[in-house]
Amino acid sequence: MIIVMKPDATEKEKEDVISRIKEYGYRPHIIQGTTRDVIGAVGDERGKFILQSLESMNGVEKIVPILKPYKLASKEVKKEASIIKISENVSIGGSKIVVMAGPCAVENEEQIIKVAQAVKEAGADILRGGAFKPRTSPYTFQGMKKEGLKLLSKARKISGLPIVTEVVNPETAELVAEYSDILQIGTRNAQNYELLKRVGKLKKPVLLKRGMSMTIQELLMSAEYILSESNRSVILCERGIRTFETKTRNTLDLSAIPVLKEETHLPVIVDPSHATGYSKYVPSMSYAAVAAGADGIMIEVHPDPDKAFSDGQQSLTPEKFASMLQMLRNFAIATGREI
Amino acid sequence: MIIVMKPDATEKEKEDVISRIKEYGYRPHIIQGTTRDVIGAVGDERGKFILQSLESMNGVEKIVPILKPYKLASKEVKKEASIIKISENVSIGGSKIVVMAGPCAVENEEQIIKVAQAVKEAGADILRGGAFKPRTSPYTFQGMKKEGLKLLSKARKISGLPIVTEVVNPETAELVAEYSDILQIGTRNAQNYELLKRVGKLKKPVLLKRGMSMTIQELLMSAEYILSESNRSVILCERGIRTFETKTRNTLDLSAIPVLKEETHLPVIVDPSHATGYSKYVPSMSYAAVAAGADGIMIEVHPDPDKAFSDGQQSLTPEKFASMLQMLRNFAIATGREI
Amino acid sequence: MIIVMKPDATEKEKEDVISRIKEYGYRPHIIQGTTRDVIGAVGDERGKFILQSLESMNGVEKIVPILKPYKLASKEVKKEASIIKISENVSIGGSKIVVMAGPCAVENEEQIIKVAQAVKEAGADILRGGAFKPRTSPYTFQGMKKEGLKLLSKARKISGLPIVTEVVNPETAELVAEYSDILQIGTRNAQNYELLKRVGKLKKPVLLKRGMSMTIQELLMSAEYILSESNRSVILCERGIRTFETKTRNTLDLSAIPVLKEETHLPVIVDPSHATGYSKYVPSMSYAAVAAGADGIMIEVHPDPDKAFSDGQQSLTPEKFASMLQMLRNFAIATGREI
Amino acid sequence: MIIVMKPDATEKEKEDVISRIKEYGYRPHIIQGTTRDVIGAVGDERGKFILQSLESMNGVEKIVPILKPYKLASKEVKKEASIIKISENVSIGGSKIVVMAGPCAVENEEQIIKVAQAVKEAGADILRGGAFKPRTSPYTFQGMKKEGLKLLSKARKISGLPIVTEVVNPETAELVAEYSDILQIGTRNAQNYELLKRVGKLKKPVLLKRGMSMTIQELLMSAEYILSESNRSVILCERGIRTFETKTRNTLDLSAIPVLKEETHLPVIVDPSHATGYSKYVPSMSYAAVAAGADGIMIEVHPDPDKAFSDGQQSLTPEKFASMLQMLRNFAIATGREI
Repeated sequence: MIIVMKPDATEKEKEDVISRIKEYGYRPHIIQGTTRDVIGAVGDERGKFILQSLESMNGVEKIVPILKPYKLASKEVKKEASIIKISENVSIGGSKIVVMAGPCAVENEEQIIKVAQAVKEAGADILRGGAFKPRTSPYTFQGMKKEGLKLLSKARKISGLPIVTEVVNPETAELVAEYSDILQIGTRNAQNYELLKRVGKLKKPVLLKRGMSMTIQELLMSAEYILSESNRSVILCERGIRTFETKTRNTLDLSAIPVLKEETHLPVIVDPSHATGYSKYVPSMSYAAVAAGADGIMIEVHPDPDKAFSDGQQSLTPEKFASMLQMLRNFAIATGREI
Repeated sequence: MIIVMKPDATEKEKEDVISRIKEYGYRPHIIQGTTRDVIGAVGDERGKFILQSLESMNGVEKIVPILKPYKLASKEVKKEASIIKISENVSIGGSKIVVMAGPCAVENEEQIIKVAQAVKEAGADILRGGAFKPRTSPYTFQGMKKEGLKLLSKARKISGLPIVTEVVNPETAELVAEYSDILQIGTRNAQNYELLKRVGKLKKPVLLKRGMSMTIQELLMSAEYILSESNRSVILCERGIRTFETKTRNTLDLSAIPVLKEETHLPVIVDPSHATGYSKYVPSMSYAAVAAGADGIMIEVHPDPDKAFSDGQQSLTPEKFASMLQMLRNFAIATGREI
Repeated sequence: MIIVMKPDATEKEKEDVISRIKEYGYRPHIIQGTTRDVIGAVGDERGKFILQSLESMNGVEKIVPILKPYKLASKEVKKEASIIKISENVSIGGSKIVVMAGPCAVENEEQIIKVAQAVKEAGADILRGGAFKPRTSPYTFQGMKKEGLKLLSKARKISGLPIVTEVVNPETAELVAEYSDILQIGTRNAQNYELLKRVGKLKKPVLLKRGMSMTIQELLMSAEYILSESNRSVILCERGIRTFETKTRNTLDLSAIPVLKEETHLPVIVDPSHATGYSKYVPSMSYAAVAAGADGIMIEVHPDPDKAFSDGQQSLTPEKFASMLQMLRNFAIATGREI
Repeated sequence: MIIVMKPDATEKEKEDVISRIKEYGYRPHIIQGTTRDVIGAVGDERGKFILQSLESMNGVEKIVPILKPYKLASKEVKKEASIIKISENVSIGGSKIVVMAGPCAVENEEQIIKVAQAVKEAGADILRGGAFKPRTSPYTFQGMKKEGLKLLSKARKISGLPIVTEVVNPETAELVAEYSDILQIGTRNAQNYELLKRVGKLKKPVLLKRGMSMTIQELLMSAEYILSESNRSVILCERGIRTFETKTRNTLDLSAIPVLKEETHLPVIVDPSHATGYSKYVPSMSYAAVAAGADGIMIEVHPDPDKAFSDGQQSLTPEKFASMLQMLRNFAIATGREI
């Protein structure tokens, strides 16, 4: 950590900072500058949060952290890419780009079975579908809950596709884990630390969506919550951040992919359906995600989008999904990978 | 709801939209324009979310909602301002501007008792202090939990100040309600709907902080979650939104105060400590909040900010807090209210 | 335009709105709703800005524009894609994806000639290089100005590559037009309407960069300024928008590509160098841009990035640029186009 | 400047950085850390922009600037607050809070004279009014230009109020200076450096509005452009930044006031009309601006807002403006200042 002193900091103030640094177990190192001094606090990063409070000492202008706050998620701890095994045939993070597809919400047996079969046939690897739905309005469909989990389970049996579905409450996390193959943490719960700790204690892979106003560093800190509870199977998901642009629901931050690939060993997937909010923009953003190096994509597919209980306008029909996957193969090949 | 058709929409497409509108129980009303037609869907707003899926029908350019998605939070349902009673002597939303103050986290008995007495003496009405702490890093102090609640309770007994403290998990919501007078929902949990529903079932007032990237409308939708569970005692809190500016921790959106005063009957308070992130900016932002019409402020106070376990740089000393309150009185008077 | 009345609007207030609508030459059309009335103002869009002031009339809740504010830039006026001819061999917007490359700033003859030859050899179509440099600080290198234009002209002669360079002042617009093939309007001047009008009067194609906080609609309005002065050769450039994320210089909004392709006939290129700010992220974002449907990319290349006068950290070496283009070809082919 | 090396940087890479630092005339200072080394570059800040390119050297993780990039605008150069004299009776930055008021655009003689007299009577100090109007659409009213300047001049003669009006083009800067007392640089031109340099050469005070996505540091850099051309009379204006919130036109960043008061000696005023976009929110934001420490406010006033050529919905009537000023006095007194 670097402590930048004010230009007019007194000797007394500098000494106070230095003794505080020592008190906390760090070695101070002073650089005398032309207009102001800079003090380095050398030592193990543990406890460095307490150092941050130095910012309120007299004579201190600002504090600059040097080390990254995450460890288990970082490449400094684990250099090679993590490959998360989902089922006998499906892994995320390897040379195969993984396709997750399905409806926003499970609505009834016919719908979920129909979609499962259609996306399987088109080439999807994993079935998505929400049983517990966190909705902006209390007056909208909140999901089929346990009933929905059972239908997902049935769809898995019939289609052979592993299931990813959302967890919204620590109290029902185990129930969801029982019925599914990947536990999804949604955007609005991406900093719900109690929920992160709970899924960190379960044995199922976790798909962690980036919060709408989360920096990449904060996303990695949320991953760190899960990892530090001993669950090492975390998949990160970029799904658009909140900006001033209104032509799309959110702004898909595809540069997060190469940044994450530089910072972490965890696999990264992209959800262009929620990011753009319109099915017409989903194919081009899927191609771009794969070109940018994503390890997978997550796509909303509904047999009858204009009658969907939720997010109809961003869902592809099974036919459009199939033709998109056809095209996507070319981009996977261009990156030297496969779908 | 207004459905704007594309300029080249066919008659068939218009008819499909019209019959869908009828099917959902609304009355269609067509306006023939010079370049494109507009179709109104007249009727009760319930179920209008299903109307939104019309956006994926052929020939539809866009959908414009007319009604606001919140009801219980709106002034259309309740015109007069809500005054939330906290204790025998303290209410929020009336002519008295309420001051909440205390440390970010309860650290030990001496600290919390000392602060409680100091802020009481300076003129605060309510004691704040976190027992369960949602922190960005899993490696930082996570709060004293139940032990912290007990210390808060003790501080209440000694100082006579009611307590506001954070709830982070549906599982511990009742425990927190037992020991406190106001349940705080933090920024990162502002769209944790399971938690909102849970506190909506309890009998304690709820202080709902705006999420970092939440629009004012979404804040009201989160309030609606609590209100619709029958808990009508909700206090809204503006605490800064996430923007590109880095000189402050977040950007305090004070214009949210007059907007909320126009939209809702619920009281609105402001937290300038978390918004700015620096204690030196807290006084002027407190004055501005009161001038803008806030019903209260929430201030971090710590006896020794540069040794605080968390958020030291944004905490005022008891002395600075007292002199700020002195000054704040003038602004309260200028608005025709009191502190 | 749709005027939404307040639920408690009086008959008098409605009548006032209706007569104002008529006064402005529109036909009013009333829809009586269950809780509030909605009034449509039907007619040609010219003058609709005056309608917006209806928002301050008594009884009016809000105004919803139906038509898009741009015309010449829209697909409603011109359905087929515009192909902008730059030179005998180079056009933008056709089946060939165009590559612009070169240094941020022209620094001296050796540098610009060297880069021109290197990027030509690697396969670039157009040479970029700034002679007039708009810099955040007045104390940094402001460009070689006219001298720089002459060097660019020399580099064009030697390499055969057309030149794109920035215009920063209406007073020097003609000078720049004399020496270059495409006039670039930079991010910070994207709403400098005097400059837009001036280049709109010149006969050279204009490359219009999106402003850092410009919506897509505002970008099209800036294009409209140029188009309405009779210059129909406008190329749009997505170069990152300002968000809260700090790991990249800006956030590249690649979904702007399919949105623009839906809204306008103008070609769209992408500048991943300025968007990301780091050369290490440029290749993957270039691939993604092409996959998303961009008509071209603009890349910073410098023979010695760590000695560049400006933007060194985001410049590729000629070697890395060449190997990136090699790879980019695969993505162009995957989209059915060529490089 | 601090250079943070990667954990696995080689000795050779460190040496290369050190010799580059020396080559640029700085003194290197190495701090050996537990996981990575940090190198300080000690010396005068001039030329430090070239140091930034060190970021592309091998082994370098990141670069942290220590010094602020602005000088003349900073308190390090001038500690006492600047008071800008506008006319015999009006100065900005002193104990009197200055009120600027008038219409968005000069529309005709009657309108501007009427407003001038009304705002004068209500207590305004300066008349605002646009003659050159930068508008988002080329099809809307672009201002009366020179004719408007003449009318402003006439209004000044009749009312005795000094004039502030916008400059949009270097070519007409002198013309505007001839007719006005303060040259306004609008939001969309806040980084139009050619325009900044031009007004920096004139002898009239400049009112510099913050760009919609400009950080406070960038605002000070734009001020630096004017100051460094020898014009030391710069007034800064906060007018809202672009965020995701849509209930207001922009988000008024009032915390910019105390931040600027800490960073610079230049006076700071606030424009709540453009920031909020709705006249109903203007009074409370004016009170808040004064409470936060603003040196003045700028308010749109129009005799007939719902017939205004532009920005009608954000303009106050003269009556509402007068009653707002009445109330504002109380807040000025509360801050120990006057209006």
